[in-house]
Order: sequence, then C-alpha cells, then structure tokens
Amino acid sequence: MPDRLTEIIEELALANRILGYEGVIDAFGHVSIRHPADPGRYLLSRSRSPALVEPGDILEYTLDSEPVNPPTPRPYSERVIHGCIYQARPDVIAVCHHHAPAVLPFCITGKPIMPVFHLGAAVGEETPFWDQHDEFGDTNLLVIKPEEGRSLARALGRHSVVLMRRHGATVVGEGLKELVLRSIFLCQNAIYQLQAQMLGTPQPLRPGEIRRANLFNPPRAGVDRAWEYYTRRLEAAGGWPPAGKAKAARRVQTKPARAAMRRSKGKKRKR
Amino acid sequence: MPDRLTEIIEELALANRILGYEGVIDAFGHVSIRHPADPGRYLLSRSRSPALVEPGDILEYTLDSEPVNPPTPRPYSERVIHGCIYQARPDVIAVCHHHAPAVLPFCITGKPIMPVFHLGAAVGEETPFWDQHDEFGDTNLLVIKPEEGRSLARALGRHSVVLMRRHGATVVGEGLKELVLRSIFLCQNAIYQLQAQMLGTPQPLRPGEIRRANLFNPPRAGVDRAWEYYTRRLEAAGGWPPAGKAKAARRVQTKPARAAMRRSKGKKRKR
Amino acid sequence: MPDRLTEIIEELALANRILGYEGVIDAFGHVSIRHPADPGRYLLSRSRSPALVEPGDILEYTLDSEPVNPPTPRPYSERVIHGCIYQARPDVIAVCHHHAPAVLPFCITGKPIMPVFHLGAAVGEETPFWDQHDEFGDTNLLVIKPEEGRSLARALGRHSVVLMRRHGATVVGEGLKELVLRSIFLCQNAIYQLQAQMLGTPQPLRPGEIRRANLFNPPRAGVDRAWEYYTRRLEAAGGWPPAGKAKAARRVQTKPARAAMRRSKGKKRKR
Amino acid sequence: MPDRLTEIIEELALANRILGYEGVIDAFGHVSIRHPADPGRYLLSRSRSPALVEPGDILEYTLDSEPVNPPTPRPYSERVIHGCIYQARPDVIAVCHHHAPAVLPFCITGKPIMPVFHLGAAVGEETPFWDQHDEFGDTNLLVIKPEEGRSLARALGRHSVVLMRRHGATVVGEGLKELVLRSIFLCQNAIYQLQAQMLGTPQPLRPGEIRRANLFNPPRAGVDRAWEYYTRRLEAAGGWPPAGKAKAARRVQTKPARAAMRRSKGKKRKR
Repeated sequence: MPDRLTEIIEELALANRILGYEGVIDAFGHVSIRHPADPGRYLLSRSRSPALVEPGDILEYTLDSEPVNPPTPRPYSERVIHGCIYQARPDVIAVCHHHAPAVLPFCITGKPIMPVFHLGAAVGEETPFWDQHDEFGDTNLLVIKPEEGRSLARALGRHSVVLMRRHGATVVGEGLKELVLRSIFLCQNAIYQLQAQMLGTPQPLRPGEIRRANLFNPPRAGVDRAWEYYTRRLEAAGGWPPAGKAKAARRVQTKPARAAMRRSKGKKRKR
Repeated sequence: MPDRLTEIIEELALANRILGYEGVIDAFGHVSIRHPADPGRYLLSRSRSPALVEPGDILEYTLDSEPVNPPTPRPYSERVIHGCIYQARPDVIAVCHHHAPAVLPFCITGKPIMPVFHLGAAVGEETPFWDQHDEFGDTNLLVIKPEEGRSLARALGRHSVVLMRRHGATVVGEGLKELVLRSIFLCQNAIYQLQAQMLGTPQPLRPGEIRRANLFNPPRAGVDRAWEYYTRRLEAAGGWPPAGKAKAARRVQTKPARAAMRRSKGKKRKR
Repeated sequence: MPDRLTEIIEELALANRILGYEGVIDAFGHVSIRHPADPGRYLLSRSRSPALVEPGDILEYTLDSEPVNPPTPRPYSERVIHGCIYQARPDVIAVCHHHAPAVLPFCITGKPIMPVFHLGAAVGEETPFWDQHDEFGDTNLLVIKPEEGRSLARALGRHSVVLMRRHGATVVGEGLKELVLRSIFLCQNAIYQLQAQMLGTPQPLRPGEIRRANLFNPPRAGVDRAWEYYTRRLEAAGGWPPAGKAKAARRVQTKPARAAMRRSKGKKRKR
Repeated sequence: MPDRLTEIIEELALANRILGYEGVIDAFGHVSIRHPADPGRYLLSRSRSPALVEPGDILEYTLDSEPVNPPTPRPYSERVIHGCIYQARPDVIAVCHHHAPAVLPFCITGKPIMPVFHLGAAVGEETPFWDQHDEFGDTNLLVIKPEEGRSLARALGRHSVVLMRRHGATVVGEGLKELVLRSIFLCQNAIYQLQAQMLGTPQPLRPGEIRRANLFNPPRAGVDRAWEYYTRRLEAAGGWPPAGKAKAARRVQTKPARAAMRRSKGKKRKR
C-alpha cells in the first residue's frame, strides 16, 4: 500500500507530464512540490525534460536547494527558483518554471498579461515582470545564484505568476492541481489576449469579477473535472503511466503477465 | 434492441465527444438535448468534461433544471442555460455552451462575428452579445441562477448563437447534428474572419446569400456527409465508442471474447 | 493483376485522402481525374468526405456531369465544376475543389495570392478571383448549374488556380500528383504570405523566377520525393490503405489470415 | 559491435527524422555531417524526404559534392550547399538546409531575425540574408551550381545561420546535436519574434546576454536533456527506429521472433 510520500511523488511525475503534453513546458522547464511532511524541503526531478519524468527521477532538496541525499544525478541548474520561492512564500505548495510559447511574446515585449476570460481569473489581477538585467547586468538569463532566486521571489511578491523578460514565467500554486491548471489557463489567457488585440481592444475582467471567478474558490467543482480531463488526455496519448513505473511493476510478475506487459509497453510508446 | 431513448442518449454522448475532439469544448462546456418523448425535460451529462462523457453519465432534468431522479451525481453548475433556453424556445432541440478558443477573441473585444464563407451561413445573419455585468454587476461569470439563464435566453432571442462577453458562447440547434455542425462552423468562421481582418477588409455574405447558403436548408445533403466525417475522425482517434460502453457490452460475453475486448480497450485509449 | 483503370481509381482515392490528411479538404471538397482511356469522361467519388473515400466510391461521369452508369449513390452537388473545366481545358487531367483554411482569408478579402517562395511558383504567376454574385446574384454559393460551372471555368482561364469569393478555391493539374502537390503548396504559400504581411511587405518571386522555379518543370526530381513523403505520412497515420480495400482482400483469405486482418484493421483506425 | 562510422550514419538518420518530426523540414530539405575519419568528405542521404531517411540511404561525397562510390541513387540537386560550406568553414561539422514555415515570413520580407529569448541565443547575434538574384539573376532559386554554393557560403560567413530570400535557411553546427537544436531554436525564436511584433515592440537580448546564454557554452548541461527529449518524442510517435533498420535486423532472427517483429512493425507505422 503506497504511503503519502509515494503518492505525492507519483502525482508530481504526472503533473510534469501533463504540463509537457499540454505544451506549457517542452525540453526545458521544471515542476516541484513542497515536501508533504517537512515544509523545509521540496521535491523536484533530476535534470530531465518534464514530459519524460518518472517517479524514480524525483529528488529531495532543502530550501537552500541542496540535495538531502547526495550524491545525486545531475540536478536542474535553476533549482534555486523553487527553493527561494518556498522560503519567501509559506503559502506556496507547488512551483513551475517554464518558457511556454503562449507567454513568450509578452516576455519579449514587456506587455502585461491581464485576465480576459473567466478561467483567466485564476491567474490573478496582476502578473508582474522581472528583468534579470536590472539587478545583475548581462547574464546567461538562467536563475542559478541564490541572490538571483531571491530577487525573482521578491518580484513575484504576493502574486501567482511572475513573467521573466526574454526568458519565460514562474507560476506558483496553493496545491499541485492549482499549479497545473493555473499554468494551463495562463497560456490560454495569453493566446486569447494576443488574438483579441489583433481584432480590437481587449476588455479585461473587472477586479470584482477576477476575485469571484477564480476557479479555486470553493466549491472548486471545476478542479476535479479539469484534472480528470487532462489526466485522461495524457493517458489516451500513451504518456501515462510512465514506462519506468511499468518496468518496476514487471519485476514481480509471472511469465504470462510479462508477455502481456511487453505488448502493452510497445503500444504505450505510440502517440 | 435499443429503444429511441437509448439511441438518443448514445448520440448525445457522441456529440459531446465530437465537439471535444474538434476543439470546440475542452475541460469545460456542455451539450444537451430535449427529451425525445417529453418536451418538458432535457438530457445532459453529469458534471464531466465533454470529451469523456459516456451514455451512463447522462441525466434527465425538468426545464427548471431540477433532476428528475434525485439523488444524482454532481450536476453542471450552469445547467440553467439549457433549461431556460428550452423554456423560451420551443423550436430548439439541442443546446451547447462552450468557450472555444476561436470565439474568445470576439467575446473579449465585443467585435461581432459575421458569416464570411458559405458554411458560416449556418450561424445566421447575427450573433448577439450578452454581458452578464449589465444586469447582474460583478459575478463569477457563470450562469447559475435562473434569472441569469432567462436573461441569457432573452439575449439569444430568435438567433442561433449568443456570444457571452469575457466568457464564451451558447449555440442552439433544431436537432443534435445541426447543433454540432453549427458549433464547428461558428469556430471556422471566427478563425477565418480574424485572419481576414489581419489581411484586409472581410466582406461578409449578403443577407440573401446567408438565407440560401444555410447547410440545413433542404435537401440537407451535406449534413450526413459531415456527420460521417466527424464521427469517423473521432473513431480513428480512439475516442469512440466510449470505454464505458465497451465495459457494459463485456458483461454478456464469453471468455475468449473478453480477452479480445481487453486488448482492443487497451488500444482505444491511445490517440 | 490490376489494369490501368483500377490503378487510377486507387490513386484517386489516395489523392483524396492525402489532401484530407494535409488539411486542404475536410468534410467538404472533392477531387477528380479525367478517365485514362476516354478524355470525354471523368472519375469522381460519390458524395463523401475526401478523407474517407475508398476505391469503391468512385463513379464515372460524362463531361456534362451525368453518371455513365445510373442509378448511382448520391453524387456531389457541385460536380459541374469538374465537368465544365474538363470541357474548357483539354490539357487538364485532374481537378480539386476545396475550402482550405489557408486560402479562405484571401477569398474573404479579395486580396490576391502571389508566389512568395520557390515552391509557390507551382501555383503560377496569377490566381484570378471568381465572384458567383457578379453573374448570378444571390445564390447558396454552390456551383450547381452548368452555366455556373462554365462561368467558373472562364474565370480560371489558362491559370492553375481560381479563388472563389466567400467560398474557397478550385485547382487544376496536368496530372494527379501535380494537382495534389499544387494544392498543398498553394496553402503553404497563402499561410506564409499572410504571416509575411503581418511582419512587413512580402516580396513575391519575379516573373522569370516563377517560370523557372515551377517544381513540375523537367527533370521533376522533387515530384516523386514529395509524393512518397505525403503517402508515407498518411500511411503512418493509419489513413492508407483504406479499410474498404482491406475488406475486399479479406474475401479470399484463409481463417488465420482473417484473424490477423481483424487485428491490424483495428489498429489502422487509430490516429 | 558497430564501429564509429556506423554510429554516425545512424545518428544522421535520427537527426533527419527529428527535424522532420519537429516541423523544421518536410518533403524537402536535407541534413549532412562531415565524415568522422576524413574531413575532406561528408555524408548525406540520397534524394529522399528527411522524415523517411534510413541509414541505408546515406551516401558519401567529396567536398566537391561528387559521390565517392558511383553509381549512386539519385542525389539531392542542392548538395553543393553542403560541400561548399564544409570547404569554407573547417569548424563546421554538420549542415541543414530547410524551408521551415517559421522562418519563411522573414525570408519573404527581408526582416532580420534577432535572438528574443535565451534559447534563441544559440542562433547567434546576426543571421545574414542571401539573395540568389543579386549575383545570378532569375534562377529556379535552387542552389545547384558550385558558384552558387560558394556565394551562399560567403554570405554565411562566420555566422551559424544564413537566411535565403524567398527560399528558406541554411544552418550549421559545431556538431550534429548542436545543428539539430539550433535549427529548432531558430524556428521557436522566429515564431515568438513574429507574435511579439504583433503585440508591441520586441526587445532582443543584449550582445553580452547572447554570448553568455548560448546553450552550447560549457557545461552544456541542456544539450543532452534536449536530445533525449526530441529522440523520445520521435520514438513515441513511431518514427524511430526506422522500419528499414528493423528489416535488416529481421534477417538473423528465428521464426517466433519474426512474427513478433511483424506485429511491432505494423504498430510502428501508426503515428
């Protein structure tokens, strides 16, 4: 019977793959969750593309972004993004850093994203910008040093999303599902806002509408419906469960079961 | 031998999944049909993403949007959209509420959609706007209260589509196939209109052309052709028949048939 | 051993499906070829979405668009497009009528398409417009009457493409492969031209470049390469060979072969 | 045990297919690598669409683009692009010529591409233009004559990308993985830049940022992560390993293995 930590790790791998399948993250980007038993630690994959992450890739870090059980496989170079935000924001349970095609035009021009449809309200009234150059001059634009991570966390402030000039975005969630859905709705909102601007003048939601339309307000009926939808899409595309998990399960199987496993594994690789 | 109601329920599940596969609805949105034997009732899935709806998810409602056979699983919170339109429009047989990416830029800017190609004529000469804020002030933008549903139905009037500011659209049909095709053509028309505006000045169909080019005019030759096309696309993608139906069929099968079923069910999940 | 007519019919079904898979035609649109043995006849599917056409759907017509072997299943209502062009243009071997999303913005605005990259040269220097309203006033925009077909053929003139206002396009080919590739390149050219106009001022090919860059000039090395590419893409997606053909082949098979056939047919339906 | 040349040839086929799957090249375009043992030779497929290239299609050429082992199957008519660049740039190990949809709008308007996000830095500070008409007047826009290839190589100069007016682009790499990733990032950058311009004023990376953010700077941690990602995506889509390789492997198999092979080959064709 799986314990809570095993479940969380599996959910984190699933969240990685959903965001990969939905086009929020591609070869790069990463997703973490705060440790369920110790708020001073967080869980994050080794350096690997999110669409490929398996439970066995998940590592444990202190909030200083040091591995709890060294030596480890190669970590993400930008993991301080996660540690510094978990330090600055005790209310944050999950963090995603990405370079989604939908948000890049805003990061490149500095035009603000504003909620333009009801699901976009989950993004919040404001998405502040952070320009690494302001404080650190010419860099490789990666957030590697602790002071860079802390600067980014300050720019995020009390918001749910921070846009990073010429780089991407970092999104936080009061839970893992909230993080995943907010990341997807941010992309949808950005696409609609860009197209609306090509058509005329986008009219954003009013502040009172933004507060009321947030999908994560109780009774949160839409959260489970959306989670089922994105999980099933990924499964239908052969992206879940991960092959690595299947391999682990195979170890204890009888011979005929193994043959069936091989067949179904072959099928899962298609998309 | 399936009776008429069973057939209608299955067609409704198929309509849900076609609209999901064609990108009209995603995690959210819903599709209903008037009860074939009782015009004072309608059929609508429990709260579930349309792309996943199975015949077993379909519930029966009065036109006041109360479940006929309580207790039921969680219903859609916006089901009054359906009930209020069926009350106001005896000619309407099917209703779809959605947030299609293609129409959102129009909902965000308030720019009207107009038929710009012959299939767009099925949308009708005018697609009125409804702004929930006009009558109800700041809300969560969901249509939950009966008075909100009635207000929306008034805005729809005698038309086939009503655009909802900063939210989405509601489409009605004189039948289920008409509803599905009109919803798809609305999206195509919106995309072409936006791109045409980026290129120059869109020239809409003339009123006489709109009346004549409606695909649902007799002899309606194109309706069956299009229905076959969208059904086959969904089947080819493994989205139909639903796994739930397969499970039901399995109950009466012999052992070897069950083994084949398991194999083909595994395949259906891929896309 | 298949004779020439059987081969041509199979190639025509393949051409229908390639154009369906590549997004040139969807539920609507049609593709024909002149009869290989009798230039006074042409071959065209019964009324069916091109992506689903099988060899058994192909019918034979006179150039007056009358079926050679009545009674037939329901024909396309717009088949005079094909008959009238074959009458007016003895050099034309194949015809496609479609409503490709890529060309619609041009049909809606009346902005001309011009070759903007080397493969676009296959479209020719000019793509004239035809507006059915000019000669026939308000219609349903379908080309159904012989005089409408002849009017369209006059607008096409000596060109390879005619754009139909608020409707779509008709493309002709000196062979079936030329028709398919020209239809695809027309769409690519239209997309690039629209995007180039959003970026700055598109600079078309010079007249001398258009004449020289036509892919169908000898030695035509690219034609077979492109044909293999589009055929293989369709096969990889499970769209070829058609299930109908497989069914015909099954008739002469032994029992174990039939079982294998059923399995692989099931797989072919996925995409 | 495969030797180094066999490995390189297989990697080259994989690179062809990755660039085909990621939408950089389609029916046309080609990818080469310098011979690992003889810098005076290079390896390039016979005339075939890159998405279909198998190891057995790879031919060996001198830097004058003459086949080393004639007679050969039909070669690419534009192979001088590769030979002339390998002659002019001893530091170049791999070359790709393509007509990616993402870069065409820039080639059509002459608007320069500039790095607008950190991964775009791998493209370099400047992407010069080459207009074949400047030196050669009206042509078919293909680079066939050695003097055309040398002219293109001069325009490329010390850069990593040269944009070809009304035609496409040629990209070079200090290795095969660098070539593949740079080609993909060039397309991403072009798409983001076009959309950013529709939204406002794109702000490119500063020269110091471009130098620092190049993914191919040591420690190059992202290169392997991205390579795994793109390879796995292709495998999941059934595009790798190639069927041709599977056929070769089948020759030495026992009968039961052959049956399994047939089954899995059937599956590989789906996408």
